[in-house]
Formats: sequence, C-alpha cells, structure tokens
Amino acid sequence: MNADSDEVERSIRARWDRLTKPPGSLGDLEDWVTRLGMIQGRKTPRVDPARLLLFAGDHGVTEEDVSAYPASVTAEMLSNIRSGGAAVNALARAAGVELRWYNAGCRSSLQRDDEKIADGSRNLRRRRALPDEDVEAGIALGRRAARRAAKDGIVLVGLGEIGIGNTTPSTALIAAVTGRSPEALVGPGTGLDDPGIARKRTVIGEALRRHAPDPGDARDLLGALGGYELAALVGVILEAHERRLPVLLDGVITAASALVARVEEPGVRGILLASHRSPEPAHAAAMEALDLEPMVDFNLRLGEGTGALLAAPLLRGGAAAYREMATFEEAGVAGPDP
Amino acid sequence: MNADSDEVERSIRARWDRLTKPPGSLGDLEDWVTRLGMIQGRKTPRVDPARLLLFAGDHGVTEEDVSAYPASVTAEMLSNIRSGGAAVNALARAAGVELRWYNAGCRSSLQRDDEKIADGSRNLRRRRALPDEDVEAGIALGRRAARRAAKDGIVLVGLGEIGIGNTTPSTALIAAVTGRSPEALVGPGTGLDDPGIARKRTVIGEALRRHAPDPGDARDLLGALGGYELAALVGVILEAHERRLPVLLDGVITAASALVARVEEPGVRGILLASHRSPEPAHAAAMEALDLEPMVDFNLRLGEGTGALLAAPLLRGGAAAYREMATFEEAGVAGPDP
Repeated sequence: MNADSDEVERSIRARWDRLTKPPGSLGDLEDWVTRLGMIQGRKTPRVDPARLLLFAGDHGVTEEDVSAYPASVTAEMLSNIRSGGAAVNALARAAGVELRWYNAGCRSSLQRDDEKIADGSRNLRRRRALPDEDVEAGIALGRRAARRAAKDGIVLVGLGEIGIGNTTPSTALIAAVTGRSPEALVGPGTGLDDPGIARKRTVIGEALRRHAPDPGDARDLLGALGGYELAALVGVILEAHERRLPVLLDGVITAASALVARVEEPGVRGILLASHRSPEPAHAAAMEALDLEPMVDFNLRLGEGTGALLAAPLLRGGAAAYREMATFEEAGVAGPDP
Repeated sequence: MNADSDEVERSIRARWDRLTKPPGSLGDLEDWVTRLGMIQGRKTPRVDPARLLLFAGDHGVTEEDVSAYPASVTAEMLSNIRSGGAAVNALARAAGVELRWYNAGCRSSLQRDDEKIADGSRNLRRRRALPDEDVEAGIALGRRAARRAAKDGIVLVGLGEIGIGNTTPSTALIAAVTGRSPEALVGPGTGLDDPGIARKRTVIGEALRRHAPDPGDARDLLGALGGYELAALVGVILEAHERRLPVLLDGVITAASALVARVEEPGVRGILLASHRSPEPAHAAAMEALDLEPMVDFNLRLGEGTGALLAAPLLRGGAAAYREMATFEEAGVAGPDP
C-alpha cells in the first residue's frame, strides 16, 4: 500500500501488545483495526462517522425470468427505503451508520440529485447491458458519492445496492473475471427455484459467449454484463482507493464490483474489508479471487448493505478497545510470567 | 419452554414473512430474534436495556503453574475494570450495554456491596475447590445479580468473568459433565506454552480422579472443581431461567457454567444464546453438549464478556429490523412472483 503503511502497522500492533490483555487475545479484531489504520494512514484508526452508499438499478435481463420477484419491485423498494421502512434503514439506524441512497438506473422518478442515468440496463442475453457512455456515467456517479463522503469527513464507507435481477449480471461478471463456469457459480439469489436457476445458468453462459468481454478491461466488462448500480459501486471503490477510505463490502453484487474495480486498479484490494459470507456460490469465488475473508456468516441473502451494517459495530468495538483500553503500565497490571 | 412459546414463535415468524424482504433472507438474524421473543414471551422481542454481569474469582490451582499470568493479575484487572480501562469496559460502552462487576472470590478489597465470599478457591489438584457453604453463597450471589437485573428492567443479560487460571476449573467441569478426557479438552487458555498445557492436563486428570464428582449434582461439581465466579455464573443462569431473561454466553468459562446449571435445571438450555466460538477445545465440547451454535468466530481468547458484547449489537440489529421494517402491505411492495 502506501509508503507509511508499514510504519502505521508496526505502531498499531505495538500498542495492541501493550494493552491490558494477553497478546493477540482480541483475535480478528486486532487485525481488522490494524488494517483500518493502514488504509487510513492513522495510528488511531477510526470507524465514525461511517456512511452506507446504496445504489439502485433495474435490469433488462429480468425479462428472462431470472428472479423470484417482478422487476417493478426495485422501484417499490427504493420508495420503501426513502420512507425508512426497509431492512437497510433499520440496520443503519441500529448501527449508527448514515444511509445515503442514489438512483443510478432504476425505473422510478425518485432521485436525490438528478443522478439517474437511465431506466435500467438492457437484456444482457441479447445485447450489451450498458452503452459505453453510461458505463462512464455510472462510474462517475460512484466517484462523486465517494468524493462527497470524503469531503463530509466520512472515514469508513459501506456498500449497498438494490436491483431485482442483479445477481445475474454480478455472477456473469464474476465468471468473466475469474474464468469459472456459470454452472459452478449460479445460485438461487433471493429465492429462485431449480428451473429458474437452470435458466439463469443458460442466460449467463449465452451472455458470456455472445459478448466475450476482455477480462482485463473493467469498462468492457461493465458494458457487456454490468448494470447501473454495479458501475456506480465500481466508481466508489476506485475513488475510495485514491482517498484512502476503507470500503466495507456487502454480498455478491458488491463483491462483483470489487473484482471489476481491481481489474482497473489492482491497488483497490488494499482498501477492501469483507463483511459477511453470502450463501451465493459466486460470492465465495469472488472472495477467493480477492483473497478476502468475511468477518461473519449469517446466511444473509438480502443485499441492500445489510451485511456491511452488521459488521460496522464489530469494527467499532475493535476500534474502541484499541483507543480506550489502558496499557499494562497505565493500569499497573503485570504482564505474562517471564 | 413455556406454554405460550409456540404461539409467540408462530406470531414472530409470521411477521418476519410479511416484512419487505424475501422470506428468510435475514438468515440467522430471524432465528435469533425469534428465540429472544420465545424466551421473553414477547411478540416484539427486545434487546435493550441489556446488562453484562461480570464476576471475579481467584484460583488456588494457579500454584500448579497452569496460567501464563501470575495470580495477582485477577485483582489488578478488577481494579482496571473499576477504572474503565479493560477491554470489557471499552466494548460495553461501544455496544451500549451496562457493565456491572462483582467480586465473588478475588483477593482484592474492591467490591460493590459486601459480596465477596472468600479470597479465592483452593487448589483443586489437592483439595475440593470450594466448601459446600461457599458453593451456596456463590450461587446466591449470582441469583441476586440476576434478580436485581430483572427488577431494573433489564431484558437481556450477558455473562462475563475474570479469574487467572479459570480455564482449568472450567475445563475440568466440562470434562466431568461431558465425560470427555482432559487430553481432548485442554487448550492454551490465554497463552500457555506446551509444557504448561501438559501440566494442565495432568492437574485436571488428577482432580477428576481424586474428587470423582457426581456429574448429575451441580453442587458437588462446583464444590470439587469450581470457582467463586463459576458458582455465581451458575446462579445467574438459574435465576434468569425463572425470570425468562435471555442469557448471552461468552467463552469457555461461561460455557462450563451453563453446562453445570443445566445439570441442576435442564430447562436452562432454552434461555441460552451462544455469542462467540472460543478456540479452546473445551468450548466446542460444551457447545456440542448444549446443542448451541455460536453466532460469530473471531478467535477471541480474552473472556471478560468480550464475545457477548460483540454479539449484542448483532441481536440489536436483528430486533430493530423486526420491529421497524415495513410490511409488504404497508410499503406497497409486491411479493414474490406466484
């Protein structure tokens, strides 16, 4: 990572070992907090203020019957999120994380700031999913959202999304980047039955053969197989990397975005934290390709950013222990027997 | 459990399925919150206000050199906790959980309410660890702490402990109740080296042979192999069971207490929630015997209640989603395709 990150790591690990606990006894928390500090370039890593950036997009591929829900649900859920009634709203409030949503490409008039690019992607089975200029516009939207977060003093960004059908483009992207077969990667998403899973495999296989995107070209990948929310998430990650903002991933859609962002800029791996392990097979493949280990495994299959929001209080606890615990010297506590 | 718990479960699961998310998509959170409600007998399960009950005890078996730390550290850490400088203090603040500590049997003048029973247990390798009347006093202390919590309106209790050397009595208790061998159960605790682990195995094996406690008698088990904080934790669990207070376990010491409490009252299994998976082998054996699945696995080996405090925000997130999410009907969102 950065030139100073070795020095930050040494400093943070040395403090962990001076705190009143057996060395290493806070386990993974010590590693997470150390990584936060290395990303932020801070010897006192911070979690707050944190913000979840959620992007909405519709998907033309829903006409292939690859989701258990009608496409109109994306717009209905965006409205539900605006009203505060979705899981992501409740979890953001409980976690003390600010939620900011963006309509990247959802068939709804709701938007915050004239950000909407289109009324959804095209059917990737038949055509390239996004025009080239829309790929750029999606990435730019995500970059603006991350830049705004950094300017607002946000020190940790979580990723979220809604988009009926979006496990299909996400799985296609993960297949294209990792070279794994759709057969090995396709899962039920939010509740597809077996014939649905078979259709999804066929659709993804056909799309990969039809478009044959260059696995070394993030824009070609997004144009062929992506979606508006996926392009925006890639933009967030690219911008966060330049600003040393740690990014907490959610499920399979954000994992696909992370893989595509890494195609563009290999250094993004260094700012990513994996929150939860999704039961979707494509998620495991993406985590392996990114060499990331999720913090928790709760069998979540909702998306929205719910996994990232459950992980945020865990990071907060770790950072609080690091910051607030007394050292052996301060507390007058004896260390281990020599 | 209670006669009404089936009805509470049906009601809670029915609401989960009306909320604006695919059925079951909040995974384990749905199960945890449902269990909370069944224990509490509430169709709207609650997490707050929550309190961590922490008990301190010293252990005569430390003279056998079974811990990486000198016995005096228990008293030093109790002082550190009173000053707010321990991991448990920082995590309790971060988690929004009240911390209340009790000196059950620690060689320290610190106590809240004249609760101290003795200056530590006897060396279980040579003698029974606790006099019979001290077992009763320890259980009574824990019962008072739980009763006080219930009177104060607490709806969720976490368990914590400090006691240099206390993985030895805890592992001995788990061996006695489960019938597993010390060889299979002994681990490094907070940092014992290999010769130390070998000594610990020998000590536990000898104690089991010398005292041969009745695995069906909780008081005999605690008297032979226990400790003051262990007896108090058993008392908390027994009282919480009578008051339908959910109890969030921590690591191997609280797991041993839960096993012993279940010997006394099999119904206590119904009020227990397992927070984290400890790397101590005895913890896995206790979880299996109790048929409990820990929520998270962070390689914590600190005790104090740190695992329970990391799990509390996860339960809070689940309860917030359950309580605050809109139903499909309220939000005007379509359900799955028929």
